[in-house]
Amino acid sequence: MLKISDAMAAERVRGTRPRKRSRLCDKQSEPDYRELRIDKVGVRGLRFPIQIRDKAHTLQNTVATIGMYVDLPKEFKGTHMSRFLEVLHAHGRVVHVENIPDILAAMQRKLKAAKAHLEMEFPFFRVKPAPVSGKAGVMDYQARFDATACGSDLDFVLSVKVGVTTLCPCSKAISRRGAHNQRGTVTVQVRSRKAIWIEDLIGMVERSASSELYSLLKRQDEKAVTERAYAHPVFVEDLVRNVAVELNRRADVTWYRVEAENHESIHNHNAYACIEKG
Amino acid sequence: MLKISDAMAAERVRGTRPRKRSRLCDKQSEPDYRELRIDKVGVRGLRFPIQIRDKAHTLQNTVATIGMYVDLPKEFKGTHMSRFLEVLHAHGRVVHVENIPDILAAMQRKLKAAKAHLEMEFPFFRVKPAPVSGKAGVMDYQARFDATACGSDLDFVLSVKVGVTTLCPCSKAISRRGAHNQRGTVTVQVRSRKAIWIEDLIGMVERSASSELYSLLKRQDEKAVTERAYAHPVFVEDLVRNVAVELNRRADVTWYRVEAENHESIHNHNAYACIEKG
Amino acid sequence: MLKISDAMAAERVRGTRPRKRSRLCDKQSEPDYRELRIDKVGVRGLRFPIQIRDKAHTLQNTVATIGMYVDLPKEFKGTHMSRFLEVLHAHGRVVHVENIPDILAAMQRKLKAAKAHLEMEFPFFRVKPAPVSGKAGVMDYQARFDATACGSDLDFVLSVKVGVTTLCPCSKAISRRGAHNQRGTVTVQVRSRKAIWIEDLIGMVERSASSELYSLLKRQDEKAVTERAYAHPVFVEDLVRNVAVELNRRADVTWYRVEAENHESIHNHNAYACIEKG
Amino acid sequence: MLKISDAMAAERVRGTRPRKRSRLCDKQSEPDYRELRIDKVGVRGLRFPIQIRDKAHTLQNTVATIGMYVDLPKEFKGTHMSRFLEVLHAHGRVVHVENIPDILAAMQRKLKAAKAHLEMEFPFFRVKPAPVSGKAGVMDYQARFDATACGSDLDFVLSVKVGVTTLCPCSKAISRRGAHNQRGTVTVQVRSRKAIWIEDLIGMVERSASSELYSLLKRQDEKAVTERAYAHPVFVEDLVRNVAVELNRRADVTWYRVEAENHESIHNHNAYACIEKG
Repeated sequence: MLKISDAMAAERVRGTRPRKRSRLCDKQSEPDYRELRIDKVGVRGLRFPIQIRDKAHTLQNTVATIGMYVDLPKEFKGTHMSRFLEVLHAHGRVVHVENIPDILAAMQRKLKAAKAHLEMEFPFFRVKPAPVSGKAGVMDYQARFDATACGSDLDFVLSVKVGVTTLCPCSKAISRRGAHNQRGTVTVQVRSRKAIWIEDLIGMVERSASSELYSLLKRQDEKAVTERAYAHPVFVEDLVRNVAVELNRRADVTWYRVEAENHESIHNHNAYACIEKG
Repeated sequence: MLKISDAMAAERVRGTRPRKRSRLCDKQSEPDYRELRIDKVGVRGLRFPIQIRDKAHTLQNTVATIGMYVDLPKEFKGTHMSRFLEVLHAHGRVVHVENIPDILAAMQRKLKAAKAHLEMEFPFFRVKPAPVSGKAGVMDYQARFDATACGSDLDFVLSVKVGVTTLCPCSKAISRRGAHNQRGTVTVQVRSRKAIWIEDLIGMVERSASSELYSLLKRQDEKAVTERAYAHPVFVEDLVRNVAVELNRRADVTWYRVEAENHESIHNHNAYACIEKG
Repeated sequence: MLKISDAMAAERVRGTRPRKRSRLCDKQSEPDYRELRIDKVGVRGLRFPIQIRDKAHTLQNTVATIGMYVDLPKEFKGTHMSRFLEVLHAHGRVVHVENIPDILAAMQRKLKAAKAHLEMEFPFFRVKPAPVSGKAGVMDYQARFDATACGSDLDFVLSVKVGVTTLCPCSKAISRRGAHNQRGTVTVQVRSRKAIWIEDLIGMVERSASSELYSLLKRQDEKAVTERAYAHPVFVEDLVRNVAVELNRRADVTWYRVEAENHESIHNHNAYACIEKG
Repeated sequence: MLKISDAMAAERVRGTRPRKRSRLCDKQSEPDYRELRIDKVGVRGLRFPIQIRDKAHTLQNTVATIGMYVDLPKEFKGTHMSRFLEVLHAHGRVVHVENIPDILAAMQRKLKAAKAHLEMEFPFFRVKPAPVSGKAGVMDYQARFDATACGSDLDFVLSVKVGVTTLCPCSKAISRRGAHNQRGTVTVQVRSRKAIWIEDLIGMVERSASSELYSLLKRQDEKAVTERAYAHPVFVEDLVRNVAVELNRRADVTWYRVEAENHESIHNHNAYACIEKG
């Protein structure tokens, strides 16, 4: 029995045969004369289901936004974009994070490239108990992998974006009562000789702030969180330094960048600080 | 006298007794004198893992952005925000879409509200074969539920956002060769007496465009898709009408809104059309 | 035989006669048989410089994002998108807000439409002195016009988005010291028989919050703002009610919607309330 | 005559005198013991009206989103955020782009910093005639300045984001008729020994694409644009190389990065290429 695809059917209806595949010219493989190699070429903005193993060794299902790139020698006019997708789909309809080195190697091989880059950004979830009632709530973070293979060398940057409470030390010191506080966002990017858990980076950030955030807080929890924040005021400067102090203690961390951004509750603009090592 | 840090105190309390709840005043339950009922009050911007059963009866894991609201009678100063989270977390760390009616009923009960609204927006995935090579690729869409309980009545709006190719009929008619085309986005919102599958709405949109989109296309597929689009030019006006014609054929559909937006390849602005029934 | 490039041809044509317009077919004016009128069709996402006269009678230069739409009777296949742009450009390279009724009338006339809609969203600026030092700072808001002409009737909705400080009454009441506070955003939409100044809506919102925002605060100002917010705690529920109370006092206001969203400093999600009149 | 500010009045109403300014402690100037200098600290997300002189020597009014940062030696706990705002406001309610070096110097001086960074991103407008009819339309681009003063050295990066049409060479080569095309975005960042006009960078990009974009196109223009794009197919790879070839011809350009992103009309993801010099 003949099973034909929709498109072939459409072709037939229009009364012609599809051109044989071997006759479709390969524009991308044509030579290029501009003498310019391209640093990165590929696809981005792909949304794809992924699975990631967390520190508790459970598998977490989430959705990543993915970019895949290779370099292109000056001799070639173009890369073959569909091959990125073939590599990504090679293992089925869910990408397993453990496969990242394989994915990079397959990109190098299938696209005949010296360098391959893979970036994945995704929400990451943790169950977190409220500080007094102990009620469990699901907290969301934003995580990101930037993995690069250059020949047989691998470079890996882990990034995490963590929401926190920051309470202003200046406002507390000068005001009779109260102190302005707000949601801040800390972004940590790390290169390390030994793998680091996303949860460990989150922990460093949450310990460095006036308070960590929670999804579920009963009244007694809200009291504890409010008083803890008031007892631990931090500027954005303190926040990035506190995280940097923790990272400096880890001998395996070879590079980091820590950024903090406060959505100031008294301004319509944000306060920002950044500290980088390496 | 022992002075312990707030955080340590919180730790200790978790191990022993929490402070009695009755000793913390309940601001929200205080009376209000402004004589103004509030239409919607609640939480939004929550990211949460969800599971949804698709037409093929497989369970799909994805991540939703969630809003939950109730109405508030004029007598009360405020709602109890933490209860929304308790309802959401009642069934564990993943929300199952089948539980939506239960979630709404629990919101009405726990928040003593006449009305309860739940909105969930999430990426939805389908495996789609390329039109000629048949190579499987994962396509992403954006879906959304807006569910409202008013007493025992339920209102449910299903929305889907679908990317498509649109090729301009005017450009084709007046040009010797070629025709400008672009990615467009169609948003369909539907109320129906009988449940509609997300996949069915996607199908209606994809049949209404110059071509559907694919994640993975080999050269023979790209040829087929290009030629199909050239053979089926549509304006945004055609796009919304084509979808509306399909929806009008379904006697169960009691209301719809169809919007199309073309990211015009020749302009820096978009073309837009909207058609609404009911 | 001379073969000239398309671009050169275009250049030449510009210097000589354009091809006669009548020879290019007019797809849009062809009849349509689907028997479906279209509610709104047009262009969106246009960025354009505009001038707006503020309450102090100075002209303010800003940049709007614009949408323009008409309805389309069921008899016609499409609208003529370029005419929207011609109407918009008719008065030069800056749109004056005073011209909105003229723009709508021109859209009805040139596009042969019963209905015409114009939407413009733009940053709006005010110079605001700090509360103690009196130092002047420029504050930004987001404003929006939604103007619709139906025959000779005009409908006009003015919207303003205003950032504020909100301090939680519950957190203040239950905590020994401090109270969580955050940046909130209030969106007010109004229909009124008499024109309302953007500045007046901003004032209503800023008076309804724990504190208004400032761009420039010296230490003595920060102290004043912190203490004022601590003295005036509001829930999102209070915020929308306070604004509604002010709007209810204006007999000319025939409809409004007030929404408040708090970027909670202790959560990773937002609190939301909405109240609507009419 | 006594003129008191709102906040002071509020203080008085509450029955106290404001604390004398000299008694407000200066937390930021306290010493810090973590031994960590901070690379960048300041404010971001400020919206501010600006004026920029374009190549035609007319003054263009637009709105910038601004970030201002300095470095902070390891000895100090914090920077003084309000001083950034004072510097920004020093010349009135509109920032003139000519003042950037003064602004940087003032930041260094007032914040006692070795380094000062200023970033401004804003829409930039050009009047562009349609290719055949010659009808004038206002086109919008996104421009950006990144200016850094380190001691008395100045570093300046100009960036422009330009929308273009790209038509796929592969799709054209293999298809009997038509070719998929789409809106693409090219971002060019440049360091140059001699000032470069924003308009010149825009020109390089627009010449490198299948066609430039227009805001207003009549039918004869649409025909010309469609045919020109069909006659000039480019991959993202071609696009970045074409721009790089033009930049390489300018001896004054010491560094550049060119990125192209195609919003593929046949996929739900984008194609991307990047080439960097230096």
